[in-house]
Amino acid sequence: MTYCVAMLLDAGLVFLSDSRTSAGVDQISTFRKTTVFERPGERVIVLQSSGNLAITQGAINLLAERLGNQESGADNLHTCRNMFEVARCVGEAVREMHLRDGEPLRQQGVEFNASFIVGGQIDGEPPRLFNVYAAGNFIEATPDTTYFQIGESKYGKPIIDRVTRRSMPLSEAAKCALISMDSTIRSNLSVGPPLDLVIVRRDECRVASHVDIDADNRYFQMIRNGWGEALREAFSALPNPDWVGLR
Amino acid sequence: MTYCVAMLLDAGLVFLSDSRTSAGVDQISTFRKTTVFERPGERVIVLQSSGNLAITQGAINLLAERLGNQESGADNLHTCRNMFEVARCVGEAVREMHLRDGEPLRQQGVEFNASFIVGGQIDGEPPRLFNVYAAGNFIEATPDTTYFQIGESKYGKPIIDRVTRRSMPLSEAAKCALISMDSTIRSNLSVGPPLDLVIVRRDECRVASHVDIDADNRYFQMIRNGWGEALREAFSALPNPDWVGLR
Repeated sequence: MTYCVAMLLDAGLVFLSDSRTSAGVDQISTFRKTTVFERPGERVIVLQSSGNLAITQGAINLLAERLGNQESGADNLHTCRNMFEVARCVGEAVREMHLRDGEPLRQQGVEFNASFIVGGQIDGEPPRLFNVYAAGNFIEATPDTTYFQIGESKYGKPIIDRVTRRSMPLSEAAKCALISMDSTIRSNLSVGPPLDLVIVRRDECRVASHVDIDADNRYFQMIRNGWGEALREAFSALPNPDWVGLR
Repeated sequence: MTYCVAMLLDAGLVFLSDSRTSAGVDQISTFRKTTVFERPGERVIVLQSSGNLAITQGAINLLAERLGNQESGADNLHTCRNMFEVARCVGEAVREMHLRDGEPLRQQGVEFNASFIVGGQIDGEPPRLFNVYAAGNFIEATPDTTYFQIGESKYGKPIIDRVTRRSMPLSEAAKCALISMDSTIRSNLSVGPPLDLVIVRRDECRVASHVDIDADNRYFQMIRNGWGEALREAFSALPNPDWVGLR
């Protein structure tokens, strides 16, 4: 499995993904789930992927191939006029993978399972964030939506639900994403470091920061220890329900 | 969906379940997921159920019917000599439901989906805790296992993983279960109050406390507000990753 989360904030975008791919517990590998397409100052597009690795790698490969083929007249991620068109391009790539692999996978009893988070900014638009499904259709984050998750999303959802708001600073959102990831890693073997953290500041149209966080990363270790400790303290500070001892 | 959690501790057993049943978002009802079979002082057996309500109600009905039929020679929950036999009886009831409903459900494309947590104590044994699957097979909690969950288990797992230990007092375990339930209710529409909290003290072989917790319950409201507040404070207290602003 995989866990990816992306947040859309007033100040920009934060993306965090793990890198664990498992086909059974004895076949665990490291594959990055984050891909950046960037023309610094003009556009920045960040893709996170979850699901069947052959499908998601294939779709990203199709998208990358098309960058060099600008004469065909078809849009690619460097020529799309807005992020909606970018999400459409990603959806089209997923549909092309379905045309290629869908039926053979079905014959093997394998689900066509792939999803993408697509976020970024193209000059002239505000930052935007999309969730692209296996059918190639997609939804966009609205002012009421601060985040999208794909993959093993449930363990790390409660903390995001409680603390995120559109106005939070990017570094605080990154902290929230890392705590959410830590909760997921602790409770699910199929999610693990190294992590990819990408920060995009609003109106810069470039990656502000792309950090590779491995298990030895000092800040992530502080989060791991500090958050667990803080949770245990918060837990101790709440009174026990003494009434349950009564019949 | 449903969320049930049961903890096996040195001091006894704690069971917490919600009561929401949904067949789609416009068909949500309240059905208790907890059933107690008790001969106070001699045995106490607590069942929690998750999955297809027709199957789990059917299985519980079979178990209840057999209590009155002690001449048949077959074990029932009042005559089983130990908790392993109790878990076997519950598994047999699930298998009988599969014989009755499995094929018609399959023809309608409905999965045979049912699972039970079975815990309690029979005089002469320590308290024991089991997880019974849809196939009627089951596993037992060992000294390394402090809890079982069924249903929507992921949202509420991280807090249990962090704070439970066999030596914790029952009231503290109940607090942990309620926080785990609160996290689940906040992040998943299909889980909701009223809640059933059952406490069994070791070697009493009876229910020590069975509390019906509705949304107005003052302690649960304190947990809901207090835990959210404590999490936000703990979150604020951890330093932000200032290095992510650097390219």
